[in-house]
Amino acid sequence: MNVTDVLDLLGIFVFAVSGCVVAVKHRFDMVGLVALGTVTGLAGGITRDVLIGEIPPVALREWEWLVVPIVAAVVVAVLPGWVERLSQPVLVFDAAGLGLFAAVGASRAVDAPVSIPAAVLVGAISAIGGGLLRDVLAGEVPQIFSADSKLYAIPATVGALVVVIGDELALPDTPVQIGAAVIAFGLRMGALHFGWHAPIPRRAIEVDDLRSRP
Amino acid sequence: MNVTDVLDLLGIFVFAVSGCVVAVKHRFDMVGLVALGTVTGLAGGITRDVLIGEIPPVALREWEWLVVPIVAAVVVAVLPGWVERLSQPVLVFDAAGLGLFAAVGASRAVDAPVSIPAAVLVGAISAIGGGLLRDVLAGEVPQIFSADSKLYAIPATVGALVVVIGDELALPDTPVQIGAAVIAFGLRMGALHFGWHAPIPRRAIEVDDLRSRP
Amino acid sequence: MNVTDVLDLLGIFVFAVSGCVVAVKHRFDMVGLVALGTVTGLAGGITRDVLIGEIPPVALREWEWLVVPIVAAVVVAVLPGWVERLSQPVLVFDAAGLGLFAAVGASRAVDAPVSIPAAVLVGAISAIGGGLLRDVLAGEVPQIFSADSKLYAIPATVGALVVVIGDELALPDTPVQIGAAVIAFGLRMGALHFGWHAPIPRRAIEVDDLRSRP
Repeated sequence: MNVTDVLDLLGIFVFAVSGCVVAVKHRFDMVGLVALGTVTGLAGGITRDVLIGEIPPVALREWEWLVVPIVAAVVVAVLPGWVERLSQPVLVFDAAGLGLFAAVGASRAVDAPVSIPAAVLVGAISAIGGGLLRDVLAGEVPQIFSADSKLYAIPATVGALVVVIGDELALPDTPVQIGAAVIAFGLRMGALHFGWHAPIPRRAIEVDDLRSRP
Repeated sequence: MNVTDVLDLLGIFVFAVSGCVVAVKHRFDMVGLVALGTVTGLAGGITRDVLIGEIPPVALREWEWLVVPIVAAVVVAVLPGWVERLSQPVLVFDAAGLGLFAAVGASRAVDAPVSIPAAVLVGAISAIGGGLLRDVLAGEVPQIFSADSKLYAIPATVGALVVVIGDELALPDTPVQIGAAVIAFGLRMGALHFGWHAPIPRRAIEVDDLRSRP
Repeated sequence: MNVTDVLDLLGIFVFAVSGCVVAVKHRFDMVGLVALGTVTGLAGGITRDVLIGEIPPVALREWEWLVVPIVAAVVVAVLPGWVERLSQPVLVFDAAGLGLFAAVGASRAVDAPVSIPAAVLVGAISAIGGGLLRDVLAGEVPQIFSADSKLYAIPATVGALVVVIGDELALPDTPVQIGAAVIAFGLRMGALHFGWHAPIPRRAIEVDDLRSRP
């Protein structure tokens, strides 16, 4: 297990905590807590691996990847007060996880036989996929789509883009990955601090729903 | 890039536009617009490729497949008036995309080691998968399930079935695919024009929800 | 086709019936009925096969796997009275399907290059994945997460765990699988009869939603 793996597992832990907190918010039972934490922590990376053909996904090959979300669920269930006190740090960790996942995801993708924009997409999916599925399973519209959300997908995409560009320029891997993670982390923290939003289309489109047209 | 690929990309463009329009309807920001357009345009084909073992999916191997939904998102965001004027044509294009995806999807599936009914299913999934995921991510019950929807899955299934039967009879590929796409297109347009519905089960089943039984 | 396959198909039939009943409850049309039945019956096994690298999934390689959900949809649509009279048996069959899927899923997973906890997870996913997707597509929060649901994921997990432990101890396959299915079935029936619940985290966490933090 190398440094990247440790950082990956740290990111999974933080994402899993966010899933467990959503589960508690919805008053799910312990099964829902463990399930939503696991999904949030692992779904992004599993989707990434299936898409690039690394099957079985690393999360199923290495047992540590599955133990981490269970630990997160136990922590949230047993120490809710600790999670409350850590909520601000958790947000920082979440941003760090976002950056790490985007960088790790994109660097795995550039080694796979996918196109250059696909490597960026796969990196971004690694970072945002778990949270997306968390929201769908909890019955919410994914927060990253919402007009009042702070930047989330954009930092992930930028981080993945940096890795892919660095790979094209044959720059050394590790500094590029660290730089990409730091940039994505910084963009996300800046968005949280300064309230940066993605632009919203300037006006509604006045068409009937395409699907219910007579 | 052959004719099939061009038609595939045209179908992706039209489906992506439909996803972007739904995103605008829900007041998603630009990230949501791009994400929902990409999902709607590509999810059906990506699911198809994963199921038949063509991994990485073509949408990740060839960069054009990823650029098309982004172009669609920019068009919808920048030229909403153009989309409004084109809404009737878009509905026609959507029906054309449905036919093309069903035909292309089924012909890819018959070359894979799947059963005959599975090739039909995979063709239909190619055609309807993107729209299904679009609705789930937008927090709506998938329109194709709804009792007041016009025929959508049935034209896709019939189109895929034509390709599979043609393959079994060893008919020449290209005319069969074109014929299948035209038939699916015609069924969908007929359903829109004449209001054809799928039958609805004649009465509700008077059982408690199976899952909440004491 | 061996005994396991027959039991697998029986489980698919019962799960498909549960999906069709939910479709009728929501007044979906026949397309929705067939689609939701197929998803409920097959999605767990397809997800399992994709995750462990058995692609195309068995449900797409063997035509019987696709015919069974269609038969289930026809039965529910044509014979709703029969389904009503069978609702109590269906609940029993559903518990049997849960046990069978967990045991079959876990035994397929232990033959794949996945970690030991991953084999348990994959077995549980086999058993609960279809119902989970059924609920999401029907626009409901998955019932297995709910605080008032009876044990469902836990019997599946225990059944899968028994298979994995038996495999580690090199016990003979068939008796272990049957025992695992019986144990999972018994736990589920006990939960239904005695109202066993999973524990609920003792109190809500007083943090703002992590995702909407300023």
